[in-house]
Amino acid sequence: MKFEVTILGSSSATPIYNRNPTAQALNINERLYLIDCGEGTQQQLLKFDVKASRIDHIFISHLHGDHYLGLIGLLSSLHLNGRKKPIRLYGPAPLKEIIDIQFKYSDTTLNYQLEFRPTNPDEPEIILENQEVIVKSVPLDHRIACTGFVFRQRKSARKIIKEKVEPLNIPINYYALLKKGQNYVTPDGTVIPNNELTVDSEPPLIYAYCSDTVYNDKYFSEISNADLLYHEATFLHNMLDRAVLTFHTTAWQAGHVALQTSAKRLLIGHFSARYKTLNELLEEARSVFPDTELAIEGKTFAVANK
Amino acid sequence: MKFEVTILGSSSATPIYNRNPTAQALNINERLYLIDCGEGTQQQLLKFDVKASRIDHIFISHLHGDHYLGLIGLLSSLHLNGRKKPIRLYGPAPLKEIIDIQFKYSDTTLNYQLEFRPTNPDEPEIILENQEVIVKSVPLDHRIACTGFVFRQRKSARKIIKEKVEPLNIPINYYALLKKGQNYVTPDGTVIPNNELTVDSEPPLIYAYCSDTVYNDKYFSEISNADLLYHEATFLHNMLDRAVLTFHTTAWQAGHVALQTSAKRLLIGHFSARYKTLNELLEEARSVFPDTELAIEGKTFAVANK
Repeated sequence: MKFEVTILGSSSATPIYNRNPTAQALNINERLYLIDCGEGTQQQLLKFDVKASRIDHIFISHLHGDHYLGLIGLLSSLHLNGRKKPIRLYGPAPLKEIIDIQFKYSDTTLNYQLEFRPTNPDEPEIILENQEVIVKSVPLDHRIACTGFVFRQRKSARKIIKEKVEPLNIPINYYALLKKGQNYVTPDGTVIPNNELTVDSEPPLIYAYCSDTVYNDKYFSEISNADLLYHEATFLHNMLDRAVLTFHTTAWQAGHVALQTSAKRLLIGHFSARYKTLNELLEEARSVFPDTELAIEGKTFAVANK
Repeated sequence: MKFEVTILGSSSATPIYNRNPTAQALNINERLYLIDCGEGTQQQLLKFDVKASRIDHIFISHLHGDHYLGLIGLLSSLHLNGRKKPIRLYGPAPLKEIIDIQFKYSDTTLNYQLEFRPTNPDEPEIILENQEVIVKSVPLDHRIACTGFVFRQRKSARKIIKEKVEPLNIPINYYALLKKGQNYVTPDGTVIPNNELTVDSEPPLIYAYCSDTVYNDKYFSEISNADLLYHEATFLHNMLDRAVLTFHTTAWQAGHVALQTSAKRLLIGHFSARYKTLNELLEEARSVFPDTELAIEGKTFAVANK
């Protein structure tokens, strides 16, 4: 099963040095989940050949422009390109008003249904459950209401132990029940416990996305044990004062978040325009949490088990 | 005096094939006038090294997303980059509401003054007069209210004829009056008519910008005699039905607009996403009006006298 994230933008606030504002495309089994949608996201999707038509769910963390200004353009283009399938949009409640007013004045009625679900700025909430994934919004601590998102893979079915099952001549249509954990009852009434016939599957993978936030342990429990943790790292730690003032995190702190939440890997992004090159940010985070990578645009990272 | 336009985007509706939505930077004497501001305009300004900080006036033709969705991002970035100088913004009245709501929810108070002047959708109106240029908004005929903009260079001062003036020992501080057309009165009271001492300057240059519109001669008189006419040419003429339905112009029609309004040169743009290459559009317009060019991104066109 595919579970990977492609970075579409990694700049904070202003685009610069060919770094675009924040957006990520999460691919779970060839379905795309778009996380944040900074200005130019639709151009980035084209550039990196990520099919916008395959996006069914869009998650907006907060209403600073660098996280959502590409949304109206993307929704319009999907409409103009003939989309009929609904799109589910998750984000702060006022986003609805911002969208409605712009479509009103452009006299646009979308060909497809845009289902909006406001996120809760105060409490973590499960906002989506489907066959592949359970998504929870997690309040962060930013200058305005902002949530992260935790994508937890659906637990896979149990795996059948062929050498145990085959000698029993179990009817093939019984296999689905075994995978769900059901015991097998032989024709003569003997009960064979499920755990003699199957083994548990791999634990579900977790991708945690923490956009703009000041370092604050209140959200740590919600993002713990991520196989891949994306965390903003806007500044180097020598700019801690500025990070606190603007409700952002330093690379050193991002490393600590990964460490304290038992992340398996860390991906840092949302780089300030003051950093032309990113090596120092990477080294600083790695000094705390060695398994760190930079969220470079166009790169794809697997949310793999280690 | 510099008077030239740099194309920042030339795609209609959806960005595609590395063509971005509409935006142009008009440079008059090193002051920049931004005309339309599609999504990604700030990235395009960076790409083509056009200094956003030098923009003092922004003109938005209408409220279809491909003409204004880059505006909030650009205004935000100017703010974050420390701008203090006011910006004057011209566009349809509801644009104010769209901007206000987005800055409200992002909790942004701009460091600089944003002076908004709504354009008149029904009548041509002079919207700006300064030392360099007079700008008029001109209602076009589109699916929603849309205006073009005509930039007419301020008439230059008259030119002094050195060989006539020098023998008269005219005081140097009188020269400014001569350039304005005043006669010279010698110390003994003799009046020397201005036209014996100066010649008229070149006629003022005109740049006319006609974004989205169906072919309709109602606006022709307002854009006549342009030294450079930008006109949309969304479709080839074999798609006239679609052009009429969507209130757009064909390349053949754009050529006719140039011909009928006595333009000196024509620049076509706003190309439909269905055209991967643009040669056919260019040839079609040239078949009617030979002095036509394509509005290719990154290219700069002088609004020169021929």
